Amino acid sequence: MLRAPADTKWLDEIAWGGDGLIAATAQDAKSGRVLTLAWMNREALALTVAEGRAVYWSRSRSRLWRKGEQSGHVQWIEEIRLDCDRDAVLLSVRQDGGIACHTGRESCFHFRLEAGGWQAADPVLKDPADIYGDRR
Amino acid sequence: MLRAPADTKWLDEIAWGGDGLIAATAQDAKSGRVLTLAWMNREALALTVAEGRAVYWSRSRSRLWRKGEQSGHVQWIEEIRLDCDRDAVLLSVRQDGGIACHTGRESCFHFRLEAGGWQAADPVLKDPADIYGDRR
Repeated sequence: MLRAPADTKWLDEIAWGGDGLIAATAQDAKSGRVLTLAWMNREALALTVAEGRAVYWSRSRSRLWRKGEQSGHVQWIEEIRLDCDRDAVLLSVRQDGGIACHTGRESCFHFRLEAGGWQAADPVLKDPADIYGDRR
Repeated sequence: MLRAPADTKWLDEIAWGGDGLIAATAQDAKSGRVLTLAWMNREALALTVAEGRAVYWSRSRSRLWRKGEQSGHVQWIEEIRLDCDRDAVLLSVRQDGGIACHTGRESCFHFRLEAGGWQAADPVLKDPADIYGDRR
C-alpha cells in the first residue's frame, strides 16, 4: 500500500521557509547544465518523489505546477539532494526535449553578465509558439 | 575611474524579491558540481562583481558574508548568469580548497534522498575544526 506521501519524516526534516517554500535547483543529469531555479512547498516535493517528475509551486500563479504540463518538457528525477542547512534541494533530472526554458532554450539561465550588461547567451532551440501552440 | 558598483543598470534589471534578495546557485566551473545555494541582495551582487568573488547576504546573521572569509574557501567568479524571469543567478566559480561546505565537504548538497530518508552521501574532505580553528 502506498503511504500518503505528505506523511513522512523526511519532509519534516526540511527547514521550510516562513512562506512554506524552499528553493529547488534542477541540474541536467547528463550535461551537468543548471537548468532552472524554482520553488517547492511540502506538497510539491512529496508529489515530485511520488511521481518521479519535478512538481513545483508557482509563486506567480499560486498553484502547483507540474513542470512540462503545457510544454511537454518534463523533468524526470534521477536524484534529489538536500543541503547542509536543509532549506534547499538539488534535483538531478533528465530534461525532456533538452529544453527547460519557456523561451525555448536549454536552460533558464541564458543571460550572461558581459560588458556591464545582461547578454542573451544561448540559442533558441525551439520557437515558443511551437512549444505552447494556442495554450498560452 | 571605477564607477560606484551599485549605480548600474544591470542591477536595476534584476527582479529583487520583496525581501530584497535573490537566490544564487554556485556551480564548480571545472567539475560542474552544484556547490551552494545562497542569497544575495543588491550590494552583495555588486560586490561580487567588483571583487570577483562570491559575496552573499547571510539571512541568519543579517549581514554581508564574503564566502571564505573565515574558512578560506573563497568562490572566485568565472561567470554570472541570470535566469529568464530575472530573479535568480547562477555563478560559475573556482572553489578554493575544493570545499564549499562548512562541514568540510565539497558541496553543501550532501544529503541524498534514499530509502525514504536523507542519507549523508559525500565524504568529509577536511575536519571543520581544522578549517575554522578557534574562530567559530
